[in-house]
Amino acid sequence: MSKGLPKRSEDYSLWYNELVKRADLAENSAVRGCMVIKPYGYAIWEKMQAVLDQMFKDTGHSNAYFPLFIPKSYLSKEAKHVEGFAKECAVVTHYRLKNDENGKGVVVDPDAKLEEELIVRPTSETVIWSTYKNWIQSYRDLPLLVNQWANVVRWEMRTRLFLRTAEFLWQEGHTAHASKQEAIDETVQMMNVYADFAENYMAMPVLKGVKTESERFAGAEDTYCIEALMQDGKALQAGTSHFLGQNFAKAFDVKFANKEGGAMEYVWGTSWGVSTRLMGALIMAHSDDNGLVLPPKLAPFHVVIVPIFKSDEQLEEISVVAKGIMADLKKIGVSVKYDDRTTYKPGWKFAEYELKGTPVRIAIGPKDLENGTVEVARRDLLEKSIMTLDANFAQGISELLDNIQDTIHQKALKYRESHSFKADTFEEFKSIINSEEGGFVYAHWDGTAETEEKIKEETKATIRCIPLDQEAEEGSCVYSGKPSKGRVVFAKAY
Amino acid sequence: MSKGLPKRSEDYSLWYNELVKRADLAENSAVRGCMVIKPYGYAIWEKMQAVLDQMFKDTGHSNAYFPLFIPKSYLSKEAKHVEGFAKECAVVTHYRLKNDENGKGVVVDPDAKLEEELIVRPTSETVIWSTYKNWIQSYRDLPLLVNQWANVVRWEMRTRLFLRTAEFLWQEGHTAHASKQEAIDETVQMMNVYADFAENYMAMPVLKGVKTESERFAGAEDTYCIEALMQDGKALQAGTSHFLGQNFAKAFDVKFANKEGGAMEYVWGTSWGVSTRLMGALIMAHSDDNGLVLPPKLAPFHVVIVPIFKSDEQLEEISVVAKGIMADLKKIGVSVKYDDRTTYKPGWKFAEYELKGTPVRIAIGPKDLENGTVEVARRDLLEKSIMTLDANFAQGISELLDNIQDTIHQKALKYRESHSFKADTFEEFKSIINSEEGGFVYAHWDGTAETEEKIKEETKATIRCIPLDQEAEEGSCVYSGKPSKGRVVFAKAY
Repeated sequence: MSKGLPKRSEDYSLWYNELVKRADLAENSAVRGCMVIKPYGYAIWEKMQAVLDQMFKDTGHSNAYFPLFIPKSYLSKEAKHVEGFAKECAVVTHYRLKNDENGKGVVVDPDAKLEEELIVRPTSETVIWSTYKNWIQSYRDLPLLVNQWANVVRWEMRTRLFLRTAEFLWQEGHTAHASKQEAIDETVQMMNVYADFAENYMAMPVLKGVKTESERFAGAEDTYCIEALMQDGKALQAGTSHFLGQNFAKAFDVKFANKEGGAMEYVWGTSWGVSTRLMGALIMAHSDDNGLVLPPKLAPFHVVIVPIFKSDEQLEEISVVAKGIMADLKKIGVSVKYDDRTTYKPGWKFAEYELKGTPVRIAIGPKDLENGTVEVARRDLLEKSIMTLDANFAQGISELLDNIQDTIHQKALKYRESHSFKADTFEEFKSIINSEEGGFVYAHWDGTAETEEKIKEETKATIRCIPLDQEAEEGSCVYSGKPSKGRVVFAKAY
Repeated sequence: MSKGLPKRSEDYSLWYNELVKRADLAENSAVRGCMVIKPYGYAIWEKMQAVLDQMFKDTGHSNAYFPLFIPKSYLSKEAKHVEGFAKECAVVTHYRLKNDENGKGVVVDPDAKLEEELIVRPTSETVIWSTYKNWIQSYRDLPLLVNQWANVVRWEMRTRLFLRTAEFLWQEGHTAHASKQEAIDETVQMMNVYADFAENYMAMPVLKGVKTESERFAGAEDTYCIEALMQDGKALQAGTSHFLGQNFAKAFDVKFANKEGGAMEYVWGTSWGVSTRLMGALIMAHSDDNGLVLPPKLAPFHVVIVPIFKSDEQLEEISVVAKGIMADLKKIGVSVKYDDRTTYKPGWKFAEYELKGTPVRIAIGPKDLENGTVEVARRDLLEKSIMTLDANFAQGISELLDNIQDTIHQKALKYRESHSFKADTFEEFKSIINSEEGGFVYAHWDGTAETEEKIKEETKATIRCIPLDQEAEEGSCVYSGKPSKGRVVFAKAY
């Protein structure tokens, strides 16, 4: 490493960008707004995928794959949907290049123009519902519970690694149901799956709630979401689950013969997704000025062992001990990397694994060999201790990892608690929203899009959600003074 | 099922298309040449992915992700590469739609034209090597062993589900090395990984060999391949591994400081890939006129249990037994589906699982309850037997699955043996190549592209590979009569 990271307190944004690059998570590519996810970053994403995929399967979903391209006319079939996505989509117009007449490279062949332009999918509702039309005839074909892991493209003008990129990776679930209630239950279930994943794997506390109409997915009747709070006091939408009503069924004429008497009814739909944006959330939720802090459950490897030696003989002796530890740890499901490279010094390695967020570092030197001990450092608290290599050692490391997972979660929870406020006047509201610290502001709102928009214009704060656990409380709108029956959650957001 | 499949002997091509659709593997989408991979088909692809991914990791590779889009100028940097791909690529020219002035849907916004067109990746050498330039400075950064799971697009004019589609899913490995020999070793290693996968998981015998110059990957110095023989006597290229020499390093100026004295040298490269085309190979290698035949190692589930009952009481009793069997099988790693749906009759279910290639079917009826037995049917040989539900039952099923895996492989091997021929005259050659039976023809070739091309023109046969186990044998070219030192393998191919 050349030098330390920028400090969060000095330039949070720069800290984030530098951390993503220096920890080898991702980098910008030659194509505007598109990122390269580097092997270390991708290893974290793979861990996320594996956990989520199992959760989807445990709730009865199967994976499938639908085309990358959407005919322009399909995108247009649901009016609000096309309005939401038309302004930022990549359009394929030709299917061939040809040699330039000057012999200088290639140009688009004007004779190879598509009859109908194709849109690179920004999301797949339209192409999937056009397919479901053929898959669904009767109530026997329902529910249809499908998920897709895919890349999507939204032509964002201001991009940031993981948080907002022109191309990103995600999963999108698309389900079809015979009744409204069943579809709503599915929507809520998947929001809960996401919340479970965020809390118990990412160690990231989230609020569960419903979006206001103006923040809804284009084409949905209701959008459920999970919202997290980053260390700069800004909110980040970490996952959404949409109740689509019969909107896409009507747009693509998807009907089923019902169980009762075979009458034809429109199908009820949902869609839900999380993306590589979660990588950004994970990084910002826990990391510090020394680098990444990863919850053990999503770390590419749990433990790194670094030998400290002055001679080949010492290294050999240490390696024997290290390999014994590795074998013991692997047996109980703890993944270990042994970094015995001679091209780098221990100090360099310490800094490197600190930057990359390896939860536990074990250092073994000649003194340790004499004493039958090792030095164990936990990344989250940057604390070191000496542990004896006895029969309980591996179990001790495993418990330490559990403790780290829990400690990270508790710390984030405390941060959120200390950054959640109630505001009863607009002055109060503004002073919190505009403060350095930021945070979630619980305030009364009159329920109108006009007020929501004005608050956004004046403060940049948006309604993150109407929380599911909203308490009934008579009050008056923090902006208009009109009556309200409960507080909603405001924040500036990514 | 409405009616039986077409017979292979009558219309192989129709048999394949119908099988893919009726077994719920894939279907054509609304976008020309792009397929929808249905949940049952995708479940097989997921099994393939999981095995291959582990094989790649076991050989030291990490996954990463690179952009979908390639700037046109990048594609042009390697002369042969662009020549190979320019004629069939999807080109993004605009990044926005706008409302039509007539208010009828959306049109491409002419004000949102890209300065430089973007190509939807047909393969990622160019975008990856442009990235490697920043990742590689010194011999310490090598080897770089990266793989990507992704979708790619090649604008094929004549498409067929799985075998040739405009968009397909694949993995592409891209490695960088300090020496020529190391890169060649990597190329050969990955061909061997593919062959191992084909033989031991797909139960599909493959020839290993090297492509002739005219069949090489655009931009490679050598292409290694595995070639399989389908049941209609046509060959199918199932995987390729390319030694790229320094071609892409030179095109993108990727150099490293060598270990010896720090002199700057060009990096040596490889790339290798297999795709959803393997699904087509798997289907065609083993299936019969009754439907799919799947090797147990890649089947979405190994065993289906079908209860045969006339009353709810009988079903309840059978379910107790079925659940006991499921628990025992799961313990030893055998996956089971229990189909107790009352909406379908046993006969319908038998035909359905036969069509879908479930390796083992267990039927349990009232008689079985009395006798403590079940009826076990193996899909590959369509043979039934009665098995006693004793302490060895689960183990017996596990052994049956091993036997099925082996039997399928042996059958395919025998088919290939009986369809491998030597031809010493062009008359002989033509009579084999043009026969109904088809097959691999081992023949002498003079080593020239001219002869290769003429044979292709006259017979549609291509040189599938120069086999790695080629025997030294003096002979004369089957077409030109010129001298040759060993036989190469010809066939008509997919």
